[in-house]
Amino acid sequence: MTKPHSSQPIGIFDSGIGGLTVAQAIVKCLPKENIIYFGDTAHLPYGDKSTAAIQAYSIKIAHMLMEQNCKLIMIACNTASAVAYEVVKEYIASKAIVMDVIDPTVLHLHQNYAHKRIGLIGTKQTVSSNIYKKKIDNLNAGIHVVSHATNLLASAIEEFGDHKAIDGLLEVYLSHPIIKNIEALLLACTHYPVIKQKIAQHYPTSIEIIDQSEIVANAVKTRLETDNLLNNNGTSNKHFYVSDYTESFANGAKLFFNEDVKLEHYPLWD
Amino acid sequence: MTKPHSSQPIGIFDSGIGGLTVAQAIVKCLPKENIIYFGDTAHLPYGDKSTAAIQAYSIKIAHMLMEQNCKLIMIACNTASAVAYEVVKEYIASKAIVMDVIDPTVLHLHQNYAHKRIGLIGTKQTVSSNIYKKKIDNLNAGIHVVSHATNLLASAIEEFGDHKAIDGLLEVYLSHPIIKNIEALLLACTHYPVIKQKIAQHYPTSIEIIDQSEIVANAVKTRLETDNLLNNNGTSNKHFYVSDYTESFANGAKLFFNEDVKLEHYPLWD
Repeated sequence: MTKPHSSQPIGIFDSGIGGLTVAQAIVKCLPKENIIYFGDTAHLPYGDKSTAAIQAYSIKIAHMLMEQNCKLIMIACNTASAVAYEVVKEYIASKAIVMDVIDPTVLHLHQNYAHKRIGLIGTKQTVSSNIYKKKIDNLNAGIHVVSHATNLLASAIEEFGDHKAIDGLLEVYLSHPIIKNIEALLLACTHYPVIKQKIAQHYPTSIEIIDQSEIVANAVKTRLETDNLLNNNGTSNKHFYVSDYTESFANGAKLFFNEDVKLEHYPLWD
Repeated sequence: MTKPHSSQPIGIFDSGIGGLTVAQAIVKCLPKENIIYFGDTAHLPYGDKSTAAIQAYSIKIAHMLMEQNCKLIMIACNTASAVAYEVVKEYIASKAIVMDVIDPTVLHLHQNYAHKRIGLIGTKQTVSSNIYKKKIDNLNAGIHVVSHATNLLASAIEEFGDHKAIDGLLEVYLSHPIIKNIEALLLACTHYPVIKQKIAQHYPTSIEIIDQSEIVANAVKTRLETDNLLNNNGTSNKHFYVSDYTESFANGAKLFFNEDVKLEHYPLWD
């Protein structure tokens, strides 16, 4: 087992194309890095699936990213981060760095939101894992977290983008009493930044909407710097793989990545 | 290859638990039949997946239902019926009867809706396959079919049931100009009967809402009668399998089956 080399790619995976919001932030922050993205569109959405299923999918994807020689694996999906981060870390061991979207976000909250009341929205799995609350409570920073599962929102955003068709859903979800009286709202799903404005408009007084993608991208940069693994060479190669290819994913990818993306079919489950 | 026997079960499969609306109609119509239901919750929803993926899943499920000794396989999912019926029939050959939800519905339209203008809503795959229109046009019965993909509706119904959270979605979907001025609306997705009233209320004047489940159940009965395969013996056994088990599927099952259902995990993809 040799130490990773800086020219090796960063592997990023998600249940589908929503993780492209994180991929985009990473590319913006680290333009010289080689990127391998894998979206498990054959199984999306993960929010409904069982813990065991998500863990099995995540292990197999991490294995594929290791075959692609990645130096770092970013689990760019809150659901998979919530239930599969530990098992993926164990599986990869010292062969590569494994990061999730939750730890960098918790650190950011610790540094910026002490003694505040923070709302969190995410999938059923992310919310019921209670992992954000557990990790934040461990900090003893007086941060109070209240969370509500907004399960259909990821699929709705994939279907409609930032469109009025989802206003009714959003209204029902955000009006839930458990997330009333908050000072900030954490978007704990990589799809949600696409409708950040719409979410902000729901609140009569201004509250801060916390978008993870930049936080996570900065954490990747810091970690690669620390480990002396930043790539400073020439041009960057990017591959965007999906386990099931459809035109609708191909069209939707731009919405999340903010620029044209060429999706390639990678038949991981065939 | 021996001829099927009447005591063998009817196999019913769907991408998830929506097909339970069809299973329920079959149980009501044929209370003495043994039933094996398989919901592919590991891959739901099918509406987003590629044709090749849905065909591969359907073949594997049909194989499993044959191992369970089914005399008849009902593809209780419009998406799978649209893209995988032919390949499943070819695969099963003469070992069992294979039926889909589309042919019985087309026959029903032929008998009752000549010279009418019919709207159809279903998943992206069902609508883009154009299979209803093709089969109906072949009848030369002057039935005019217009269709619109209401892709998120199945997941929304699984999440919320018959709840106002989906009113906004429904309004956007049903207001699409392509399905204006229709005399009847075919619900070409097994989930939709759950919100039949809500759909009817969208229309200012009364239009007929066509629910497939009873049509399909009657077609199964007719076919078993014709083939002399109706079961008239004692008690009926029912098994309801899912490829991924979660509490939320277990809770949702009652919504579609109208009575308590005990879901069992069948790890077909492990």
